[in-house]
Amino acid sequence: MGILVIGSVALDTVTTPFGSMTDGLGGSATHFSVSASYFTKVSMVAVVGTDFPHEHVEFLKSRDIDVSGLETVPGKTFRWTGHYGIDLNSAQTLKTELNVFQNFIPKVPQKFGQNDFVFLANIDPDLQRSVIEQVKKPKLLACDTMNFWIEGKRESLLKTISLVDMIVINEGEARLLSGKTNLVKAAQVIHQLGPRIVVIKQGEYGALLFYDGHIFSAPGMPLSDVFDPTGAGDSFAGGLFGYLAMKNDLSLSTFRQAMIVGSVMASYNVEKFSCDRIRHLTQKDLHARYTAFKNLSHFDEISF
Amino acid sequence: MGILVIGSVALDTVTTPFGSMTDGLGGSATHFSVSASYFTKVSMVAVVGTDFPHEHVEFLKSRDIDVSGLETVPGKTFRWTGHYGIDLNSAQTLKTELNVFQNFIPKVPQKFGQNDFVFLANIDPDLQRSVIEQVKKPKLLACDTMNFWIEGKRESLLKTISLVDMIVINEGEARLLSGKTNLVKAAQVIHQLGPRIVVIKQGEYGALLFYDGHIFSAPGMPLSDVFDPTGAGDSFAGGLFGYLAMKNDLSLSTFRQAMIVGSVMASYNVEKFSCDRIRHLTQKDLHARYTAFKNLSHFDEISF
Repeated sequence: MGILVIGSVALDTVTTPFGSMTDGLGGSATHFSVSASYFTKVSMVAVVGTDFPHEHVEFLKSRDIDVSGLETVPGKTFRWTGHYGIDLNSAQTLKTELNVFQNFIPKVPQKFGQNDFVFLANIDPDLQRSVIEQVKKPKLLACDTMNFWIEGKRESLLKTISLVDMIVINEGEARLLSGKTNLVKAAQVIHQLGPRIVVIKQGEYGALLFYDGHIFSAPGMPLSDVFDPTGAGDSFAGGLFGYLAMKNDLSLSTFRQAMIVGSVMASYNVEKFSCDRIRHLTQKDLHARYTAFKNLSHFDEISF
Repeated sequence: MGILVIGSVALDTVTTPFGSMTDGLGGSATHFSVSASYFTKVSMVAVVGTDFPHEHVEFLKSRDIDVSGLETVPGKTFRWTGHYGIDLNSAQTLKTELNVFQNFIPKVPQKFGQNDFVFLANIDPDLQRSVIEQVKKPKLLACDTMNFWIEGKRESLLKTISLVDMIVINEGEARLLSGKTNLVKAAQVIHQLGPRIVVIKQGEYGALLFYDGHIFSAPGMPLSDVFDPTGAGDSFAGGLFGYLAMKNDLSLSTFRQAMIVGSVMASYNVEKFSCDRIRHLTQKDLHARYTAFKNLSHFDEISF
């Protein structure tokens, strides 16, 4: 089953204690799509400016991502400039230049509207909703969001959230959205806003799935060399969604597996700047990291 | 196999957003011993003042903990006063009154020296080492510590650490001790200080085991009602050590299980003030929470 994703395609400028990158390929839709492309066909709706390097479009195509919904309009591509300190846990946003995103109205190509899996990556909740209106009811409709929209456009965001089956957000956002510090209570509040399925990302600590009263915890992979966390959450969502779409199954068992697949992709994402590490993964790479996750979390039956 | 533990027995005064407790039973040796007592015989070396309520001693005895190494000396019992904010993640120490601990010289009763499992709970590293000198070489010798000793008595602490097989510390302490922010690198540095086995506690996020190049991640149990985290780390260590002693086995497989048993005990510890929740656990309670941990972390084999 194919995936339709709407989100940002960006040029990121990032500094970390380990180096810096200027105008690297970034954006929520980018990381999501590249990650999901290892598992299923992805169709992308987004916008770039005329300054967007053609090589990036070629790269997306090389991952078999359908970019016919990627508009190029006069002006500059969306740019994000951020900095990470030594703990790499949270980015400090130095500059956000919306550029062509300021007047963007998503147009979903007719053929894209048939995708059974639709992911609304982090973007203005008005735009997320305009995509919902352009597609037939999907089998799984999910969204991400961020503090900026929770604080600045709450009413619109709540409308979007009321329409989705699943939300994927980080723990700080879950707390801000719900007004609850405790994550179990936060998930309960968010369920009441609409989504049956709540996924809370916890950065290096992994991610929690709240599904029909069940909780699943995907561990974070301890890595000795974390280079750039930018896009890790989107890569996680891409692996999660990609696996669900590939299996075309929404059972709890498949969701648990999908959380691990998402974690595999996120753990590769952080090993280099931009999409550089997840550009060229092999099946062997995926299997090796999956095996590492099994070893990380497996324990034999305990008898007390 | 029995366990010998040395550490603090204290009267804790704790305030959290959910209530407060004055002079409740606390201390590293207390939480450790109560937790471990569900799995094996525990012998405790510690000191209290003449003001220590007799009912607490009776309670420890009721858990079949050998308190013949618990000295009562003239003066006041060690007291800790702390406060937790709404996130309950880290305690703010308001007051530490060493009292009878100021002049404490641990005396290990002869019969205690035969225990094959020795745990040096958080206490002055000089005292930890004086215990090592009084026992025959155990099968497993482990220690905990805290920021206070890492910063204030580093040389003595490093001597203690060089002698142990295993160290159990929280992630902030691991970073402070090693000078490394990245936990994989922190564990590597700590291995070089002596301990073959490094366990890093991550509070609500669980705990990591570093063992002969393998890493195991025990998840934290998401709980809707966390009441008082005081002693959770000691209860974790007690469950971990208690299970290892009960099985009398130090294989990786048993360590993985022991990490989960420790997590079961820590998750109960936080549900009430002091030791109130882990006072009266049944086998059914232990099994129920263990099953919850299995459900929390289990995923079926994935085929890509």
